[in-house]
Amino acid sequence: MVYYAGVDLGATNVRAAVAADDGTTIGVSRNATPRGPTGIDITEGVLRTLREACGDAGVTPGEVVAAGIGSIGPFDLAEGAVIDPANLPDSIDRIPLTGPIEKLLDTDEVYLHNDTTAGVIGERFHADRNPDDMVYITISSGVGAGICCDGEILGGWDGNAGEVGHCVVDPRGRLTCGCGRNGHWEAYCSGNAIPDYARLLAEDDPTISTDLPLESPDFTAKDVFEFAGEDELADYVIDQLAHWNAMGITNVIHSFAPIMISFGGAVALHNEALVVDPIRDRVSDMVMTNVPEIRVTDHGDDVVLEGAIASALTQGTGDRTRLQN
Amino acid sequence: MVYYAGVDLGATNVRAAVAADDGTTIGVSRNATPRGPTGIDITEGVLRTLREACGDAGVTPGEVVAAGIGSIGPFDLAEGAVIDPANLPDSIDRIPLTGPIEKLLDTDEVYLHNDTTAGVIGERFHADRNPDDMVYITISSGVGAGICCDGEILGGWDGNAGEVGHCVVDPRGRLTCGCGRNGHWEAYCSGNAIPDYARLLAEDDPTISTDLPLESPDFTAKDVFEFAGEDELADYVIDQLAHWNAMGITNVIHSFAPIMISFGGAVALHNEALVVDPIRDRVSDMVMTNVPEIRVTDHGDDVVLEGAIASALTQGTGDRTRLQN
Repeated sequence: MVYYAGVDLGATNVRAAVAADDGTTIGVSRNATPRGPTGIDITEGVLRTLREACGDAGVTPGEVVAAGIGSIGPFDLAEGAVIDPANLPDSIDRIPLTGPIEKLLDTDEVYLHNDTTAGVIGERFHADRNPDDMVYITISSGVGAGICCDGEILGGWDGNAGEVGHCVVDPRGRLTCGCGRNGHWEAYCSGNAIPDYARLLAEDDPTISTDLPLESPDFTAKDVFEFAGEDELADYVIDQLAHWNAMGITNVIHSFAPIMISFGGAVALHNEALVVDPIRDRVSDMVMTNVPEIRVTDHGDDVVLEGAIASALTQGTGDRTRLQN
Repeated sequence: MVYYAGVDLGATNVRAAVAADDGTTIGVSRNATPRGPTGIDITEGVLRTLREACGDAGVTPGEVVAAGIGSIGPFDLAEGAVIDPANLPDSIDRIPLTGPIEKLLDTDEVYLHNDTTAGVIGERFHADRNPDDMVYITISSGVGAGICCDGEILGGWDGNAGEVGHCVVDPRGRLTCGCGRNGHWEAYCSGNAIPDYARLLAEDDPTISTDLPLESPDFTAKDVFEFAGEDELADYVIDQLAHWNAMGITNVIHSFAPIMISFGGAVALHNEALVVDPIRDRVSDMVMTNVPEIRVTDHGDDVVLEGAIASALTQGTGDRTRLQN
């Protein structure tokens, strides 16, 4: 038997899974992502999680012939490492991934993808029709896309294709993105941005009534969605989020001509009726070309991990060249 | 000797060229695009132009082994025909292209592309480094893109990838696009749209002085650029065009991660200092990822025709299967 592995490295958790050659998951593990102090600590956390998943599956790491990784970025692709990740402590400047995992598994078939790319690989692999043209959109702490166009997963020369969360939606540029530029989609609609956006809308029109705890440091996007239908400001924020999200998705459709768009990420997954349905309702009035099917992933929080496994299954030959060391 | 042909079918002119197998153009022809009454009249105009280019080159149509077409759309790709083109008389509902050209040239190697896709094929073929990741943007009567990402020319399932002129830039949706939707990039920045946009800006602020002939039916985008530096409204329009163009290009960069963007189309070609330079100046403050080289095509009005020839040269095998009829 040969086995395949997937790794999902996020800022909060690192997860690993081992699958049989028919794609069935036979072992899993999850740990909190180490907070450093160095990137090597995170690498070691990834290796430990992967070893645990092998143990859970009852296989040795050496029996895994190929692995996929869906990870936070950005990457040094040539080195197979994460460089200066945004949502981890500043002391973490470099997280080696591909090389250490190749050593652990004794295979050179390790495929590193950003999390949204892993998402689209997983969605496509598990889709009924395996469409050649589809987009996976995550709305979570950030906003981003994984793109499959004409059957090819898009990377771009620097791996930055699909960074659509940094598309400008607000020409007035009222909110500043985590990247430092103004008016970007994710500066309004990401889970991290929604609290500040709610505060901005409240300031704009103090006559809007609200019980949202705007001044609390614990105020989060989740509060906005929990107050839906019962709070004037919450409903207005949700309406405005739909406005920007529909604009962003309209631009994705005109750019990539997908036949299907699949949403993941905590904000979309936990609020389909408040976040995804309004996009579906609005884009048909905004799009000139064919409007794709718009859905939420069936894989929930597993979509990146599923994509990492699918990457290993579809790209791994199983005829690995054994490493010489 | 084998020869290759290119066709550029626009709403105004149809052009054809014949090239030797080293890519050197050896014959050309140009005619006004017939105004109908039917699409077949346009097909015949295309065939006549192609025959004339063969005559100019001193070759017979049967000596041409492959042809590329860069054309206005939209297409029925399965039938190789233009369907309901926007800028031709309403009586023209269908322009057969691939089949009739295959018959004329007695080859099945005829490749139909929209004009922006032909543009990116030509730009890439003639670029010094032949980059795998580049975008051709036309700003002419409309706005559109031809995309090459990871070495693949993007189409999308319905051929509509790169329809970026229909990306929404103005969330207020003040101007209506030719497609009927509001706020699209080309509703502000295309040559056809600029006069109405100038009128809108003049209405917004009647204190802006102007000698532009806003009320004349002959007022065109060209007037705006001719008045640059001498007219307060013209300068304001040009500044606002730069604002929307920079927003559109920022979104193209975040979507496709090109290493080079090349501009064509009359508005960009004839006004590099007023249209393209300001985009270059502004995008570096708006883009999170790597900013590509931004340039104007070296091929001027020939870029689509050059791309059509390049398509034939790069895809045509020269070992054609002779048609059986």
